[in-house]
Amino acid sequence: MLTTDDPLLLRHDDARGVITLTLNRPQAFNSLSEAMLVALQTELDAIAADPKARVVVIAAAGKAFCAGHDLKEMRAAPSQAYYEGLFAQCGRMMLSIQRLPVPVIAQVQGIATAAGCQLVGMCDLAVAADDARFAVSGVNLGLFCATPSVALSRNLPRKQAFEMLVTGAFISASQALERGLVNRVVPHDRLPAEVESLVASIVAKPRVALAMGKGLFYRQLETGIAAAYDDAAKTMACNMMDASALEGVQAFIDKRPPQWG
Amino acid sequence: MLTTDDPLLLRHDDARGVITLTLNRPQAFNSLSEAMLVALQTELDAIAADPKARVVVIAAAGKAFCAGHDLKEMRAAPSQAYYEGLFAQCGRMMLSIQRLPVPVIAQVQGIATAAGCQLVGMCDLAVAADDARFAVSGVNLGLFCATPSVALSRNLPRKQAFEMLVTGAFISASQALERGLVNRVVPHDRLPAEVESLVASIVAKPRVALAMGKGLFYRQLETGIAAAYDDAAKTMACNMMDASALEGVQAFIDKRPPQWG
Amino acid sequence: MLTTDDPLLLRHDDARGVITLTLNRPQAFNSLSEAMLVALQTELDAIAADPKARVVVIAAAGKAFCAGHDLKEMRAAPSQAYYEGLFAQCGRMMLSIQRLPVPVIAQVQGIATAAGCQLVGMCDLAVAADDARFAVSGVNLGLFCATPSVALSRNLPRKQAFEMLVTGAFISASQALERGLVNRVVPHDRLPAEVESLVASIVAKPRVALAMGKGLFYRQLETGIAAAYDDAAKTMACNMMDASALEGVQAFIDKRPPQWG
Repeated sequence: MLTTDDPLLLRHDDARGVITLTLNRPQAFNSLSEAMLVALQTELDAIAADPKARVVVIAAAGKAFCAGHDLKEMRAAPSQAYYEGLFAQCGRMMLSIQRLPVPVIAQVQGIATAAGCQLVGMCDLAVAADDARFAVSGVNLGLFCATPSVALSRNLPRKQAFEMLVTGAFISASQALERGLVNRVVPHDRLPAEVESLVASIVAKPRVALAMGKGLFYRQLETGIAAAYDDAAKTMACNMMDASALEGVQAFIDKRPPQWG
Repeated sequence: MLTTDDPLLLRHDDARGVITLTLNRPQAFNSLSEAMLVALQTELDAIAADPKARVVVIAAAGKAFCAGHDLKEMRAAPSQAYYEGLFAQCGRMMLSIQRLPVPVIAQVQGIATAAGCQLVGMCDLAVAADDARFAVSGVNLGLFCATPSVALSRNLPRKQAFEMLVTGAFISASQALERGLVNRVVPHDRLPAEVESLVASIVAKPRVALAMGKGLFYRQLETGIAAAYDDAAKTMACNMMDASALEGVQAFIDKRPPQWG
Repeated sequence: MLTTDDPLLLRHDDARGVITLTLNRPQAFNSLSEAMLVALQTELDAIAADPKARVVVIAAAGKAFCAGHDLKEMRAAPSQAYYEGLFAQCGRMMLSIQRLPVPVIAQVQGIATAAGCQLVGMCDLAVAADDARFAVSGVNLGLFCATPSVALSRNLPRKQAFEMLVTGAFISASQALERGLVNRVVPHDRLPAEVESLVASIVAKPRVALAMGKGLFYRQLETGIAAAYDDAAKTMACNMMDASALEGVQAFIDKRPPQWG
């Protein structure tokens, strides 16, 4: 039974360094209250500094993944300064996901709306149950999902993102897959297993390669292609000089499995 | 019967603020003569200044949507200065669509070629009849569709855009849908009804949310993600402070429909 | 029978200006040794300066298209300076493809992995046999495919590119098609014929239009849309003033085939 003493955000670490953060406010569709944003930011900051962390799964308790901001809280004390602060706080949390040195996977069931849809967009990878549905529905209330549009327009083709933003309508899990918002769609009861298959693939790789690679991936997307290649060449040379890559390449040449610590 | 006295561009306004601009030069496949470009620019400028406008539909009379520039006119008096002026005039009109504070929907039947295909690309949304076909065919005449490539490469994956530009070949409506050039494809006789479903969804939302949102959407696409979030947070705070959003969110909390003027 | 005297890279020119470069190191899965990179760079530089060149096909001898860097060679003398130089050399070759004034088509059978997958991504167009498979598999050895990610993230949707980069897993030819990495997939024995259909379409167009257009295409992708339109308008005016475009447009008006030299 859930009580107000249940933590908003559950954290589970396994022996491999797999950290599962579970949004735990199912009675409120896991909405991103200020307290929830603080809880997420706190955990993400801790994970960023933790060399044992290997991958993060963002999951959700209950029927919904996340319904976006807590509207009741948001409506209580309106002011331009309050809202700028709130949306900046939320954006900071979202960017922390992208800046984390380990991959982050969204595990999505039920609805993911507004900032909940943005949360899916900002994760590096996303797996959805076939009953998941996605919308940026703020426009239905007169509030264009501006911050979610930043994530959405970097995942979906332009016209499809724009349609979601001006209609506020839901798309299905299979449409989310076709359009690039999620990587995989599986039957509801296969959701944890499918996430685990990505997790297992990730933890089998050296941490340093993924950390260098993820950082480079997002940096180079924001530059011209010549600058992107300069950055990538330096990054890859650094990665190659790391003991794990030298061993991995040698093992490949020797036709044996790599021996990583 | 069409005569030379028929206006090149028909404008129809309904009571909701839905403005339909119909390219009305069917005998010339609605090609974008200089007079047509002026007519479009004049209407777009008027709509930009009209607070009653809510959404624009760009439709076309006859079998074709639009065949691009008027080649006869274009060939008559060749000079570098003339062509630079012509293509700049056309680009200005195309950018005016994106800069309009209301959504613009292309309603496409038949062929949309060269600058006609570009026109589809520059609209925020596009609905096509299943008999519509799209090409950037200038290259067949030795004229690479350079200005259309600006729109095309911002709608389609890179290789698919490049293929269309160097082959000049047509793609079908369903290919245009898969590749992101249009939002929806419907049987020919369902075309107006499908456009109306988007229109109805748009006019049900407050104008201010769409105006702020559309502006932000295209601005943030051209910046890095951190700057995009800064802009989006400020825009969303402004939007939230508007009376329509405060009422919309309150109505949601109260479980009643919003009362918008 | 292949011996060490066989050239690493075969070049075949036909009477139309179609240049086929065949990676010819099948016993090593056509891996990009330093000698192979030099051979490719030398040919690309020569082609860039050759006004008779019309289109380049990059093909591969044997079962595989290309398995990326030569790992044995790469592992032999590790140093940061050596690796930075090697990856810069490879990136220079890749960018030379994009900077070439003629279209470049990848003809892909078998596996295309790591820098081999990048090579497909950097070509303007790609046709794959239905048995082709694609991976950026360096991460399996502890070496994130950083330079390939530059090409991959400019071809595929973001989450799909990221998944390939962190899992190192293969995607099929049909997945590569859906995600934008290749333009067409055909049965293995139809591969040369399908490439030829693109080649025939390209050589039927004036060289100057394709050269101006290709240059503009990649330049404008790296700027904001207003600057892109300025560049495109000037480029298109230049193209239109060329004799081939003036003749092509006049021929269209006269309803006759263009007479190009």
